[in-house]
Amino acid sequence: MADALTLHEDPRSGNCYKIRLTAALLGLPLERVQYDILKGETRTPAFLENVNGNGRIPVLQVGDRFLPESNAACWFLAEGSALIPADRFARADMLRWMFFEQYNHEPNIATLRFWFYYVGEANLSAQQREQILPKRMAGEDALGVMDRHLAEREWFARDALSLADIALYAYTHVAEAGGFTLRDYDHVCAWIDRVASAPGYVPMD
Amino acid sequence: MADALTLHEDPRSGNCYKIRLTAALLGLPLERVQYDILKGETRTPAFLENVNGNGRIPVLQVGDRFLPESNAACWFLAEGSALIPADRFARADMLRWMFFEQYNHEPNIATLRFWFYYVGEANLSAQQREQILPKRMAGEDALGVMDRHLAEREWFARDALSLADIALYAYTHVAEAGGFTLRDYDHVCAWIDRVASAPGYVPMD
Repeated sequence: MADALTLHEDPRSGNCYKIRLTAALLGLPLERVQYDILKGETRTPAFLENVNGNGRIPVLQVGDRFLPESNAACWFLAEGSALIPADRFARADMLRWMFFEQYNHEPNIATLRFWFYYVGEANLSAQQREQILPKRMAGEDALGVMDRHLAEREWFARDALSLADIALYAYTHVAEAGGFTLRDYDHVCAWIDRVASAPGYVPMD
Repeated sequence: MADALTLHEDPRSGNCYKIRLTAALLGLPLERVQYDILKGETRTPAFLENVNGNGRIPVLQVGDRFLPESNAACWFLAEGSALIPADRFARADMLRWMFFEQYNHEPNIATLRFWFYYVGEANLSAQQREQILPKRMAGEDALGVMDRHLAEREWFARDALSLADIALYAYTHVAEAGGFTLRDYDHVCAWIDRVASAPGYVPMD
């Protein structure tokens, strides 16, 4: 990796943690620039102009180029490593779980953690309160899909740790902060322990 | 591609169309098996057991293996072709736009199309009605991000059509069925014409 790698992040974000964990497992050094999303620091004109026009973190800076979207950044770091399956179908299957994570998992499980743990229930808008129950149900559906998959397998794609596990681990292992009960999902709990035992693993801040 | 390719789809779905369009641009033959999502045909025990435990289409069947998630299926079909950039950063940047599509674009633009065009406004639940305005605003934000990106470029990743364009095209070009006004986004309109001019292009059913 010839270019310097800089992670533009809020350390409370599981999406940012995915990139830190991927870099740690690969032994890649990563500079960190921190923003407070609760103070709107990723919506300033300078951030929108220079880092990400979508106003979101994480963004992986590679030399002077900027790469938003956590799972795309993990892909960039891991290409050519054992974190991406060598088999064509398994590689696409890994991406399948990473898209599942962004569509079915993160908008429910990460959002409820953000609302309950950082914003605070008392500060939620009426519209957010109405979303709690549907997000709870959709999040439980996602955890159920994961648990059934892991009933027969140790990892999400092929037979080893991949980016699919890293992407799903980030918000799953802290899901109780959003009111989910992980002990309802035995296979997910065993998998969480497996991910945390990977050589080079670093915890979330 | 040694294995037979079968698309499990609802032809009204833009997510399914992405896979059809990718296969067409690559000249790959694709069998089609159709389901009616409005009749719950992807939630039957047989579908959940044999095709996708997440109860969703599209699913690309490759021989006897099943690959859910539209963007992962497009990736599988296109690996090694000109629809995926050869450059490492550009390849990750293509995935960046495909994750953006599933997170910021589809849940807003595709969902409003589904509600207005297929379910019908009169049949929406109270909870769905309360989501119309936030989804309208988030969808307009996504179209705005796309329009600003395309102000300086012809395509989403590097300088040629890629899977990022196919993923974003599917629901953008029919966004007016969900109440969006495409003529507000000049650069998006010009890009829609470019995608539709690609050799091998097929329209949505």
